[in-house]
Amino acid sequence: MTEFDLIYRYFKLEEDKPSSSSPSSASIIKSIGDDAAVVGFSENSQMVTCIDTLVQGRHFSDDWNQINELAFSIGYKAVAVNISDIAAMGAKPHSLLLALTLPKRLANEEWLRTFAKGLHHACRQFDVRLIGGDTTRHDKLVLSVTANGIIENGTRPIYRNGAKVGDKVYVSGTLGDACYALNHPHSAIGQQLAHRLHMPTPRIHLGQALAKLGNVTSMIDVSDGLAQDLNHICQQSKVAMRLNLEHLPSSDPLQQVERLERLRCQLTGGDDYELAFTLPVNESQPSDLSIDLSKDLNMKVTCIGEVVAHNTVVDSKTNIHMVYRGSMVTENSPYPFKSLPELKGFQHF
Amino acid sequence: MTEFDLIYRYFKLEEDKPSSSSPSSASIIKSIGDDAAVVGFSENSQMVTCIDTLVQGRHFSDDWNQINELAFSIGYKAVAVNISDIAAMGAKPHSLLLALTLPKRLANEEWLRTFAKGLHHACRQFDVRLIGGDTTRHDKLVLSVTANGIIENGTRPIYRNGAKVGDKVYVSGTLGDACYALNHPHSAIGQQLAHRLHMPTPRIHLGQALAKLGNVTSMIDVSDGLAQDLNHICQQSKVAMRLNLEHLPSSDPLQQVERLERLRCQLTGGDDYELAFTLPVNESQPSDLSIDLSKDLNMKVTCIGEVVAHNTVVDSKTNIHMVYRGSMVTENSPYPFKSLPELKGFQHF
Repeated sequence: MTEFDLIYRYFKLEEDKPSSSSPSSASIIKSIGDDAAVVGFSENSQMVTCIDTLVQGRHFSDDWNQINELAFSIGYKAVAVNISDIAAMGAKPHSLLLALTLPKRLANEEWLRTFAKGLHHACRQFDVRLIGGDTTRHDKLVLSVTANGIIENGTRPIYRNGAKVGDKVYVSGTLGDACYALNHPHSAIGQQLAHRLHMPTPRIHLGQALAKLGNVTSMIDVSDGLAQDLNHICQQSKVAMRLNLEHLPSSDPLQQVERLERLRCQLTGGDDYELAFTLPVNESQPSDLSIDLSKDLNMKVTCIGEVVAHNTVVDSKTNIHMVYRGSMVTENSPYPFKSLPELKGFQHF
Repeated sequence: MTEFDLIYRYFKLEEDKPSSSSPSSASIIKSIGDDAAVVGFSENSQMVTCIDTLVQGRHFSDDWNQINELAFSIGYKAVAVNISDIAAMGAKPHSLLLALTLPKRLANEEWLRTFAKGLHHACRQFDVRLIGGDTTRHDKLVLSVTANGIIENGTRPIYRNGAKVGDKVYVSGTLGDACYALNHPHSAIGQQLAHRLHMPTPRIHLGQALAKLGNVTSMIDVSDGLAQDLNHICQQSKVAMRLNLEHLPSSDPLQQVERLERLRCQLTGGDDYELAFTLPVNESQPSDLSIDLSKDLNMKVTCIGEVVAHNTVVDSKTNIHMVYRGSMVTENSPYPFKSLPELKGFQHF
């Protein structure tokens, strides 16, 4: 539970029954707890909206030289990571608001121009408009971006809470690249993967294609590590998952990395910005969704496991079984594989 | 021009002609430059949206003891100042997103609970719902809030750019109280006015009443000081204003303060969160709008000046003449009366 969840819990405790004021022309269809909130303006008009923050020293380097060098990618990434949440709802990105707290040493034309170029590059790439913002002076760079998206006619937003026992679990692209690049910035493989850390690609078209597919039961963007993010689906859907770790998709560079380090990056590394989702297996469904979606989107989609009943998992916190070469791994912590030593503890597979 | 405006200028320089992608179901009616942006979802459904940030050491004390004491009012104020921007568009507040960067020493149940109580108190008072947010760890408390509002049926958003020569200039409530309380926290008068600094009241009902009135030509919320905020109206409307400083509304406590100090607070002090607006004088208009609106809203509204042609002001930067006991004051800086010494320089009035 994040501090924001804690605030919201207190907030809910205090909250009276829903306001009895005159009915508004905008209804709140989905509030806190998903990748984005959903507001309905009419039967055919739904907006999704979310906010996310990037902080110096946490989401990008604390080093001023690096911040100067990375001005373009900081501008780009502030947009991209928010658009990824919009994609995870199956929505079409629409507009952005930017709240910028800016240190004096970055308040110069060169940095701001380069930052704006990165921001604009992302806006153009994802077809989204910057419609508002403000600046405040502060000793560190902090960027909060609100992203709005539109649920297109004939589609519905895809939540985290609809996964059903028997569904297959899929993930787009490859996992673990950004985490490896962050931890090994000077290695050859780390440098090959640096673009995945600094210039992530939110899977907008895949998200919208899945919304059109109509039978996706749950979806989330993989931003905090696959295990943690899939666990959100498990908790909200009241199910568990069995993952086949041999099927986790790896990029060619990451494939060269030692197995345990690679798995740690793929299961617990952040900043992937891939989409993970669940789909029922039925007769009309092609047996290999991966090939079917790839055809249209030039995007790899991999089946990595299946949804199982909640009570098949012994540890109720974890909700995820990890299967590797026939051995089953369960963990006592809610987010297994948090660190390499923990992972090494499971030498039995 | 703020750094955000600078970013936007670079952004606009880079921007291609409007996107040629398929027409969206949501049109951007007003982008950057007003109190909030306006997005249209259908003919009768418009949303206004804005983002604003409160930073430790700038918008509230840097002192940890005070931050502990002020947890409730920080939660309240984060909502109130954003709702004020929604009010300034003539909109009805609807929903909020909160991005919280939280220092470790505040990440305890007591502080978060009290903060959430303040947040919730404001949400209930202004009939608005918290629908999303996130938390990030940081060494200082930084709060970015996105506020959404709805333009009610039969009304239109009120912008900054419609003031016409001959219009009267009005302001709600009283000016300068928060500024005085900030600068004199330990004086008797400062303490009498502290609630205006810590628990400001956005003028939601007035904003909506003015939108219903239908002939308000421009509006802004007074958050950065009257002179600076009215100057935004002047610049965007391409007009000037003549203000009668003897008519600036004062609270009873502030009325006891020495004249120059009082005027400095009223003209340049921030955090008033009153509404300033312009209205044409016509036959159907009651000669004393103040009395007319007060009747319904229990809210003082004062006529403080009039809109004049741009070229009647010698200094094109200022756009505002300040008239005091028959003397006219013009300034060379865009925001006159920025500090008491500057104001004292004008001993001729």
